[in-house]
Amino acid sequence: MGLIVQKYGGTSVADVERIRIVARRVAKTFDQGNDVVVILSAMAGTTDNLIGLAREVTDSPEKRELDVLLATGEQTTVALLSMTLKAMNYPAVSLLGFQAEIVTDPNFGYARIVKIGANRVRELIDKRNIVVIAGFQGWDAEGNITTLGRGGSDTSAVAIAHALKADVCEIYTDVDGIYTADPNICKKARKLDKISFDEMLEMSSLGAKVLQIRSVEFAKKYNVPVHVRSSFYEKEGTMVVNEDSSMESPVVSGVTCNKDEARITLKKVPDQPGISAKLFSPIAEAGIHVDMIIQNTRSGGQTDLTFTVPKTDFKAALEISSKVAQEINAEEVLSAENIAKISVTGVGMKSHSGVAAKMFAALADENINIRLISTSEIRISCVIEEKYTELAVRVLHSAFELDKK
Amino acid sequence: MGLIVQKYGGTSVADVERIRIVARRVAKTFDQGNDVVVILSAMAGTTDNLIGLAREVTDSPEKRELDVLLATGEQTTVALLSMTLKAMNYPAVSLLGFQAEIVTDPNFGYARIVKIGANRVRELIDKRNIVVIAGFQGWDAEGNITTLGRGGSDTSAVAIAHALKADVCEIYTDVDGIYTADPNICKKARKLDKISFDEMLEMSSLGAKVLQIRSVEFAKKYNVPVHVRSSFYEKEGTMVVNEDSSMESPVVSGVTCNKDEARITLKKVPDQPGISAKLFSPIAEAGIHVDMIIQNTRSGGQTDLTFTVPKTDFKAALEISSKVAQEINAEEVLSAENIAKISVTGVGMKSHSGVAAKMFAALADENINIRLISTSEIRISCVIEEKYTELAVRVLHSAFELDKK
Repeated sequence: MGLIVQKYGGTSVADVERIRIVARRVAKTFDQGNDVVVILSAMAGTTDNLIGLAREVTDSPEKRELDVLLATGEQTTVALLSMTLKAMNYPAVSLLGFQAEIVTDPNFGYARIVKIGANRVRELIDKRNIVVIAGFQGWDAEGNITTLGRGGSDTSAVAIAHALKADVCEIYTDVDGIYTADPNICKKARKLDKISFDEMLEMSSLGAKVLQIRSVEFAKKYNVPVHVRSSFYEKEGTMVVNEDSSMESPVVSGVTCNKDEARITLKKVPDQPGISAKLFSPIAEAGIHVDMIIQNTRSGGQTDLTFTVPKTDFKAALEISSKVAQEINAEEVLSAENIAKISVTGVGMKSHSGVAAKMFAALADENINIRLISTSEIRISCVIEEKYTELAVRVLHSAFELDKK
Repeated sequence: MGLIVQKYGGTSVADVERIRIVARRVAKTFDQGNDVVVILSAMAGTTDNLIGLAREVTDSPEKRELDVLLATGEQTTVALLSMTLKAMNYPAVSLLGFQAEIVTDPNFGYARIVKIGANRVRELIDKRNIVVIAGFQGWDAEGNITTLGRGGSDTSAVAIAHALKADVCEIYTDVDGIYTADPNICKKARKLDKISFDEMLEMSSLGAKVLQIRSVEFAKKYNVPVHVRSSFYEKEGTMVVNEDSSMESPVVSGVTCNKDEARITLKKVPDQPGISAKLFSPIAEAGIHVDMIIQNTRSGGQTDLTFTVPKTDFKAALEISSKVAQEINAEEVLSAENIAKISVTGVGMKSHSGVAAKMFAALADENINIRLISTSEIRISCVIEEKYTELAVRVLHSAFELDKK
């Protein structure tokens, strides 16, 4: 018995029938004597439909108004779930972001949570209500509606769990936990019982789209235990927790891949101070998120500068790069869209050497050419040709024996 | 130049293309130097769709949660209109009911406006913004979302116009004004330039569905000039104003009809005190709205009791009536669904006699049998067989020479 925060994603509340399934699970948890706070996303597809509607109006809808529009998605699902619970004779009350006192900065479309009052939530819990809160949304200090960006409901859930000092934040999704690799790619992929926040952070940012990265940052910062599990099955999922002595700390926990990026290279750039800023300032101003940046020193006072950007921003980034290349007298601009980033992640890496060597060797054995390399303390990423993605995932999964516990 | 409140109904904002037309009209009014506050309904059909969704969950959705769900309708249109205006480079800001400080009682689904703060609205107007407010919705003292009931956006508009001391409250709709009769029934129907609040009140309650009756009550109480006009044409519509000396005060202003009611009669009810209460208390408890009540004294200590209810509540009312009839020893219960109420309305009636006689004679000339009669100071209503509805409207329109100004 305790206070349990449950977050259900878009596929779990995609229609009235699925909402009924969610209601039954919530009711069961409540019947076990727990206090339950539920955070919901919009129905799967709704957010995209609403963005489509806004695009009918204009290519670049005003961000404040877009948030007002998008916030209707979660408003719909919290009302429907509360109705369902009420019809089942459970004491449910829905709250929108502003009613749950989720205060954010005024950065429309990608707002950050500043404070959670949650007085009313606590009051309702104390009276043994099931509180159903709209995820993804809040309001700023001036009372404008804001949204937290794609996947923001995860962050809502973790932040609310923290504010309420919940015992656990359960994230219900359409997968049943975190795997050593994408099971669709690698049949030997194994579900992890536990994973550390740091590993999850690296994996989230690398394309394992189970949790929004900011929710993991938040959970790590405030040490909120997160349980990722399936809304379709009863069995336990994966606990995301602080790294501690009781964890196995495998050298490598998982292999992830990301095909959403493209590569741009400026050849023979004069190796002078300020050159990088000349390139990356206009790119940042265009709102383009740069992922990897790699620069090799070359002889003759020249260097090659390579970076990757989301495929959706590729054209814009290439245009800016070509313009800058002329200004700074770079020899030429090369680019490739058919790339993939393969990464191995694991907190155990910190204390083990040879992980990189093993990774490169495994890829070399299959004649997979490595184009770019970047590393963090607990991750090594290689950019390869896109067509080798699945092969690389499987090869690395075996090389690091991830199928064995 | 002044402060103009414009309210657009569901058909005026039914899709992005129509919202664009509304935006152009708003922009034009703004360009003429006026301050403009816009009140919107949900897109036509949205409210019904949302109710349908709730009914998928349960036959009797929790009212608080239904209001949360329904409120998404206007939230969508205000966001879209504001985006459209912004894309046209007009300074538009959307506000939801709670943001516009529309405080209501906690009577979910049929809440009444208690107070309008409108501080933020005024601030925004002072900075020359076009303020786009979600109609139909507010919040109660505890911060719960409420809705005002069908057609509630009219009431929102009038209440906001009053709170802001607006020069006029323009109600844009799919008809171009108030007519002496329904033009679909009576080809000779003539648009009125002016009509008094009292006449409009009687007509609203009698089935001329142009304005929600509560909005007219509100406008009358606070003397808010209302201009009913078409959102598709430029021409002037009908002004609804306080009766004053400058008005023509015709004997009869219009003929209306209503086919939405059904009749129930309890025959030979013992003529004793408390009998009516025994019947109408359980009917009121069942939430059934009774319109006409007529009781004729009969000889022998017995009377007939007749009343009308909305057709949608007919079955429930009949069931209650049959039960009560047994308890009070009434002889039998008669009922009819195929009835219509025909009314003539006009402030001039107060000072003219003979209106009733003329009405009865005109109907008699066509052999239309009058089943029930009820009157107010400025209205006479007759219940007739439904099949004679259109004939009766045309006959009365001619009898009172409504086609002539």
